[in-house]
Amino acid sequence: MTITPLCPAPIMQHETVQMAHGAGGRLSQALMQRIFMPHLHNTFLDLLDDQAKLDLPPGRIAFTTDTYVVSPMFFPGGNIGELAINGTVNDLAVGGAKPLYLSAGFVLEEGLPLSELELIVKSMAEAARQAGVMIVTGDTKVVGKGQCDRIFINTSGIGIIREGVNLSCRNLKPGDSIILSGTVGDHGMAIMTSREGLSFQSRITSDCAALNSMIGAILDVAPTSIHAMRDPTRGGVAATLNELASSSSMGIAINEITIPVKPEVRGACELLGIDPLHVANEGKLVVAVAAEEAEKVLRTMHSSEHGRGAVIIGSVVNDHPGMVVMLTAFGSRRIIDLPLGEQLPRIC
Amino acid sequence: MTITPLCPAPIMQHETVQMAHGAGGRLSQALMQRIFMPHLHNTFLDLLDDQAKLDLPPGRIAFTTDTYVVSPMFFPGGNIGELAINGTVNDLAVGGAKPLYLSAGFVLEEGLPLSELELIVKSMAEAARQAGVMIVTGDTKVVGKGQCDRIFINTSGIGIIREGVNLSCRNLKPGDSIILSGTVGDHGMAIMTSREGLSFQSRITSDCAALNSMIGAILDVAPTSIHAMRDPTRGGVAATLNELASSSSMGIAINEITIPVKPEVRGACELLGIDPLHVANEGKLVVAVAAEEAEKVLRTMHSSEHGRGAVIIGSVVNDHPGMVVMLTAFGSRRIIDLPLGEQLPRIC
Repeated sequence: MTITPLCPAPIMQHETVQMAHGAGGRLSQALMQRIFMPHLHNTFLDLLDDQAKLDLPPGRIAFTTDTYVVSPMFFPGGNIGELAINGTVNDLAVGGAKPLYLSAGFVLEEGLPLSELELIVKSMAEAARQAGVMIVTGDTKVVGKGQCDRIFINTSGIGIIREGVNLSCRNLKPGDSIILSGTVGDHGMAIMTSREGLSFQSRITSDCAALNSMIGAILDVAPTSIHAMRDPTRGGVAATLNELASSSSMGIAINEITIPVKPEVRGACELLGIDPLHVANEGKLVVAVAAEEAEKVLRTMHSSEHGRGAVIIGSVVNDHPGMVVMLTAFGSRRIIDLPLGEQLPRIC
Repeated sequence: MTITPLCPAPIMQHETVQMAHGAGGRLSQALMQRIFMPHLHNTFLDLLDDQAKLDLPPGRIAFTTDTYVVSPMFFPGGNIGELAINGTVNDLAVGGAKPLYLSAGFVLEEGLPLSELELIVKSMAEAARQAGVMIVTGDTKVVGKGQCDRIFINTSGIGIIREGVNLSCRNLKPGDSIILSGTVGDHGMAIMTSREGLSFQSRITSDCAALNSMIGAILDVAPTSIHAMRDPTRGGVAATLNELASSSSMGIAINEITIPVKPEVRGACELLGIDPLHVANEGKLVVAVAAEEAEKVLRTMHSSEHGRGAVIIGSVVNDHPGMVVMLTAFGSRRIIDLPLGEQLPRIC
C-alpha cells in the first residue's frame, strides 16, 4: 500500500490567536512549536505527554495554585507572565518550601497578537530561570473574542518543604516580631497608574519579584524561630496581618511610622483615597519571628536584593486576639481591618 | 486600651458574584465560607494557608494541569465542575499514576449567580469523592462583566506513578493492539446539541467520567505490556492516535467498522458535517497494549462501568510511520489526519 505523505499545512501565517489554536489539532501543535517550546522547552515539556513525571527529593511537598488575570497585561515593572511565575514561586516559598516545578495553563482570547503572547511566554521562561524552577506541564485554551480579556494564566507549583521548618499562619507566638521586607503598595499602584485615564508624574513600578532566594537565606539562619511568612498580595499588608492574627487567635500591634511607603505611592494613594496597607504587593514579605532572632533575620534580609528595606513594623500581642491595631503617626490607635470591598480590581 | 469589636459586615446578601468577592477582603472570606468550604472542606483546605503541605507516598509523581472553559457550563450529562475534576484525574491516570491531590483555580465573571456557582462546586466535591481525590488548595479571581464568559476552572493534579509502569505516547511497539473503551463523540456532540439553536430529537449526553478506577484495574492485570494510554479529548480519537503515531514514529492502522458510534451521535455528526473521530470525549480511553495481552485487558475493561463497550480498533504497524490509516467501511484506505482547524470551540 502506498500512502502519499501529507503536505505540511500553511501553519503559522497568522499574526493573532485563532480559535483553531485551541482545538487540539494542527494549529495547536503549531502554536506549541512556534511560541511555547522555543522559550519553555526542557526535558519534561519536550515529551508532550499529558502529565509530567517527576522524581522528587524526599520530604513533604507544598502544592499551590493561582490564576493571574491582571489588567493591563503589560505594566510598569513587569507583565502577567513573570507575575504568574513569581507569584506561585512566592506562595511555595512562604510555606517553607523550595519551589521546584510549575504548571502553566493559558486561556487566550481570539485575536490576541501572537507577538504579545510570545513576549509574555519569554518573560515566564526568564522568570522561571531566575527563580530556579521549571515549567513542566501546560495547557492552552482559546475562547472567542469578548469571552475573556486577552489572557489569563494559571500557574500551579510544587516544592519540597525544608526539613525542620514548620510555617503556618496559625503559628504566631506572643512577642514575635513582625518584619516587613520593604515598601508597600508598589505593585497595586503601578497597575492603577498604568490604566487608562490615570497618570502620575513620577512613574511607579511594580515590585514583582521571586522571593525564594531571600526566604531560603532567612530560613538558613533561623529555621525554627520563624513562625509564619506571607507575601502580602491581594488585600495588601492589612489583609495579610489580619489573616495571621485571626488564624492564630493572637493580636498584632503595628506602628504606622515604621511602615515604608514610597512618596509617589503615598501620593497616588492619597489622590485615589486608598490606604497603602490595602494595596497589593508582589515582591514583599511579612515574617513573624521570635523577637530574639529578629535582628539576625533582618540583617540577612538587608543583604538580599529584595529585602534591603526590611524593617520591624510591630509585634504579636496577647491583647485584642484576631485583630490588628496600628499606632498612628498622630499617636492614636486604629483598627486595621480587612478591606470590605474591591478597590483595585484585577490587580494580579 | 479598649477596642470596640467590629460589627460583622452584612456579608452575603448578594445573589451574584461581585467584584469584591475576588479582592482578598471580607467578601472573599465570605465567598469561601458560604460557597466553597461547605462542599470542599478537608484537613488541608481548612488551614487556609497559601499552599497545601502534603506527605506523599514514595515514588515518582505525575503532575498535570488543565483549564476548563466549556460552554455552556451546564450540559447534558455534566457540568464544568465535574469535567474539571474528571479531566485532570484522567490526565494523571493515563500516565500510570494514582491521582491523589488536586488544586482548583476559579475565574468568575461578575454577575454569575451564586446559586449556579454552588451547584458547580457541589459537583466538583462529588466528582472528587467518586474519583478518590482531594482538592487541597485553591484560588478565586473575579473579573468584570464581559471580561470572561461566566466561569473558567483550572485544575492541576498530583498522583503517584505505579511502580514498574512506564507509559508514554512514545512507547508504541509494532504489533500492539489499539483498544478503545467505548463510543466516540458523545461529549462533543452533547455540548454542540445543547448550544443555542441546535437541537436533536434524541438527547445526547456527555460521557464525562473519571477513568482512574478502570485504568487501575487494567494496570493490575497487565502492568508492563500496556505501553501507552490517552484519553481522547480535544481533537478526538483522531488527534490521540496521531499523537501516539508521531511521538512513537510508528504507523497505526484502524478499521472503521470496529469504531463504536451511537446512532444519535452519528446522525448529529452527519448533519453538522463533522467526523466523529475528531469529536472530543471525556470518559473514553485509548490503550496500546502488546497483542498477546489485549484480550485480557479487554475483558478487564468490560467488567468496568466505563469500559463495557471496549473494542480493539486496530494495531501498531511498521508501515507509514507517524501516520494513522483507516480501512473504511467501503474497503478503501483513508489517512486520519489531525483536524486543521476548529470545529467545536470551547468543548472542554
